[in-house]
Amino acid sequence: MAAIDLNSDLGEGFGPWPMGDDAAMLATVTSANIACGFHAGDPSGILTVLREAARRGVAVGAHIGYRDLVGFGRRNMDPSSAELVGDTIYQIGALQGLAKAAGTRVRYVKPHGALYNTIAHDACQAADVIEGIKAIDPNLVLMALAGAPIVAQAREAGLTVVCEAFADRAYNVDGSLVSRRLAGSVIHDPQAVAERVLRMVNEQRVVAIDGTEVALDAQSICIHGDTPAAVAIASTLRQTLEAGGVELKSFVDMLS
Amino acid sequence: MAAIDLNSDLGEGFGPWPMGDDAAMLATVTSANIACGFHAGDPSGILTVLREAARRGVAVGAHIGYRDLVGFGRRNMDPSSAELVGDTIYQIGALQGLAKAAGTRVRYVKPHGALYNTIAHDACQAADVIEGIKAIDPNLVLMALAGAPIVAQAREAGLTVVCEAFADRAYNVDGSLVSRRLAGSVIHDPQAVAERVLRMVNEQRVVAIDGTEVALDAQSICIHGDTPAAVAIASTLRQTLEAGGVELKSFVDMLS
Amino acid sequence: MAAIDLNSDLGEGFGPWPMGDDAAMLATVTSANIACGFHAGDPSGILTVLREAARRGVAVGAHIGYRDLVGFGRRNMDPSSAELVGDTIYQIGALQGLAKAAGTRVRYVKPHGALYNTIAHDACQAADVIEGIKAIDPNLVLMALAGAPIVAQAREAGLTVVCEAFADRAYNVDGSLVSRRLAGSVIHDPQAVAERVLRMVNEQRVVAIDGTEVALDAQSICIHGDTPAAVAIASTLRQTLEAGGVELKSFVDMLS
Amino acid sequence: MAAIDLNSDLGEGFGPWPMGDDAAMLATVTSANIACGFHAGDPSGILTVLREAARRGVAVGAHIGYRDLVGFGRRNMDPSSAELVGDTIYQIGALQGLAKAAGTRVRYVKPHGALYNTIAHDACQAADVIEGIKAIDPNLVLMALAGAPIVAQAREAGLTVVCEAFADRAYNVDGSLVSRRLAGSVIHDPQAVAERVLRMVNEQRVVAIDGTEVALDAQSICIHGDTPAAVAIASTLRQTLEAGGVELKSFVDMLS
Repeated sequence: MAAIDLNSDLGEGFGPWPMGDDAAMLATVTSANIACGFHAGDPSGILTVLREAARRGVAVGAHIGYRDLVGFGRRNMDPSSAELVGDTIYQIGALQGLAKAAGTRVRYVKPHGALYNTIAHDACQAADVIEGIKAIDPNLVLMALAGAPIVAQAREAGLTVVCEAFADRAYNVDGSLVSRRLAGSVIHDPQAVAERVLRMVNEQRVVAIDGTEVALDAQSICIHGDTPAAVAIASTLRQTLEAGGVELKSFVDMLS
Repeated sequence: MAAIDLNSDLGEGFGPWPMGDDAAMLATVTSANIACGFHAGDPSGILTVLREAARRGVAVGAHIGYRDLVGFGRRNMDPSSAELVGDTIYQIGALQGLAKAAGTRVRYVKPHGALYNTIAHDACQAADVIEGIKAIDPNLVLMALAGAPIVAQAREAGLTVVCEAFADRAYNVDGSLVSRRLAGSVIHDPQAVAERVLRMVNEQRVVAIDGTEVALDAQSICIHGDTPAAVAIASTLRQTLEAGGVELKSFVDMLS
Repeated sequence: MAAIDLNSDLGEGFGPWPMGDDAAMLATVTSANIACGFHAGDPSGILTVLREAARRGVAVGAHIGYRDLVGFGRRNMDPSSAELVGDTIYQIGALQGLAKAAGTRVRYVKPHGALYNTIAHDACQAADVIEGIKAIDPNLVLMALAGAPIVAQAREAGLTVVCEAFADRAYNVDGSLVSRRLAGSVIHDPQAVAERVLRMVNEQRVVAIDGTEVALDAQSICIHGDTPAAVAIASTLRQTLEAGGVELKSFVDMLS
Repeated sequence: MAAIDLNSDLGEGFGPWPMGDDAAMLATVTSANIACGFHAGDPSGILTVLREAARRGVAVGAHIGYRDLVGFGRRNMDPSSAELVGDTIYQIGALQGLAKAAGTRVRYVKPHGALYNTIAHDACQAADVIEGIKAIDPNLVLMALAGAPIVAQAREAGLTVVCEAFADRAYNVDGSLVSRRLAGSVIHDPQAVAERVLRMVNEQRVVAIDGTEVALDAQSICIHGDTPAAVAIASTLRQTLEAGGVELKSFVDMLS
């Protein structure tokens, strides 16, 4: 029986400002990428979502980002190597502490936003993130973009890597994501999203924006939690996958 | 042979701004209260001081504070209970992560500035800090002001508490510190400081600002690291104590 | 013909996080208290709401707060006098600059949250805010709680003060607001809110929570913009007031 | 008689952390680039340096930067156009307010660190900064790197531009600065620095790092205020220039 992990970015409120519906998403996903305070997330809010993740048995990952709250970690930055190593460890450690208090533990690391996109191909910043992860816990899994250069780099450095695909994003023929600035980059129809993901899981393929088929080897599917339609898409996706005979389970249970 | 712990606040630079001479202080103290990023300290700077503490075998504590960088955690605040519990865990967790990366580990928690002063006597905020410490690691020791109500409160809650006295601060007759706003509140002469501390260690007494003697049961002595004379005072103190037959060792080694 | 000013707190999003429906509220209110970046508000978001306020001819005020983003300026703090004077000027200046760029100008200052509540009765912090306002522009009007000690203090210091009442908050018999922690402190029924305000305007009276009548001399009515029902309450209020023969106009037009 | 402006970056402390000796530098320079809170500077500290600048008649400029306190504005960022325009206006407005309170006013804008370097040649970010300046006050002068593309761009946009050279930095043959990462990029000998500047003023030339002469048309010379030798270099430079018959005066007095 085929199985797949669904992950989503959660805990991204800050102080008086909520974002998305964490509780609803936690009813659907099997892995929760939880903000660590640099691009979003405050300690008491993070603790709340960690407790709910623990209660539901959802695997927890550290969603680390650049230190850029107002820009939500979506702006490119060039921290020094020492800064990026330190920021990586600090964020993971903070989340580990909160996870322990919530009765769970951090199993993986998924960089966020501009950091995610940069380290996919920038070997220097990637090396800093990898070094930071290994320094705090070499057993942490790195979640990275399927097909990106960082996947091999991290594996060579000794990390376990889980590759992810995006449920609602269009793909270029080379397996990269179509830029959000281009028309058609995001797929909004829940049923279309669900069918794409079903094919990703069963055939390891996706139809690229030019109509050709692209191979895509992903062990986790990212679904967005911060759009108005997020909960509806997530729910449709879960039902479609289950109806299609795909088991939803955290990749950490598949690895072990 | 009498023994005493010397502690100091370190790692309190931030980005381009240094504070004090951490390396010099680490040559003298036996316990290092290390900033966790809320009142001071950035990850790469904290990591540097942790590595030096690890190299020298100095015990490491989490110097947690209010989230008030510009005010250096010296301004009173009234966080909600959930906020203060979360902030406590977050800061300790972040330091634990960095300590692990530096080859050491966090042994105790010493609140900073306004948080330190407030929880000394405010049972509500004290309870939040205690709850946060217990939630992340009940084996962490709390360092608190000798004679303050929080000492009993934390012990009743199950924490091990180490009491500290201040090397260069004048005391009131009730054992509290003379306010920094009053003349004579800080003792600047290195030799006078050293002799006071020697008496604290050998006789568990200090001469209060009105000339009377006050009992003072402290297992650690706090020396300041951020004044121009800090290194000179620390060095004189260490020599005087050693000449007086007092062994300097971390309280964590005395506890175990 | 009776006239009244309606004010609301706007521009309180931050980065990726929106708050309330600024555009809808600007269709109703005559004065906009606009966040200045310390408790909420980022420059580009503030600029957007200022442009809309300018387009609609809504008067603009600086909604200054404590420097506490995660706490949304709702936590008590004790900045030094120099800090509070500086923070007051800095926030007003920043908003003046953005207002000029948006084709309007700052007419008044309304402190926010914990700062608002503290200076209502704390003469020291009140003096700092007053000094800051006078230092940047003594012609700025201070908006303050009707009946609070700061009203006389600011007038004695030479500032023009406009007093405000709260549309949806219950009052104690001494004219103070019922604490939000008590039942019945907030009135949720739009029609009840509208009728209370109509009476405030026409009779300068409000029924206190114990049923007695309290005198209330207010030139502006504050309505909330950040609750789910905010726009509905604002709209009902505007209609009720206009049907009751009350003209809605900014207090700055009444002063001049 | 030849005349030149000397400028320096001041007001770059933050909260408990000082930087440089602002009072000493203000005794030497004729223009003060004052931090605005984004890369450095807190309101009360900025106010203190503004008052001293006002007392000494030193011209005041807004030293605006990226919103990156821990990185001191030295890390590249890619804010959106709306963000950079807003950040430019906000910082200038805040400094204008503080300057007014200090009895002076902002005469020019000098971007800081990574923003300075980026807009020197990046026409998009340069356009955002220029738009921001014009939106708040088109009479503000832009201080920019002599020879950089932004000089012409800003002039075409209608701004007055003053060009600056760096007293202690080595130049490439194309007039750009030698990267700080290369040996010899910074000149530390006060007398050598002074003689270079004298030649920049009298002959509009500088000897590049390869020994050839480069034309350099600068109306202001930047001297650093944050190094240990800063005050000594500044003092030697002032004496050498005055001995060489060069009058020191703010460029704003030369423009008018």
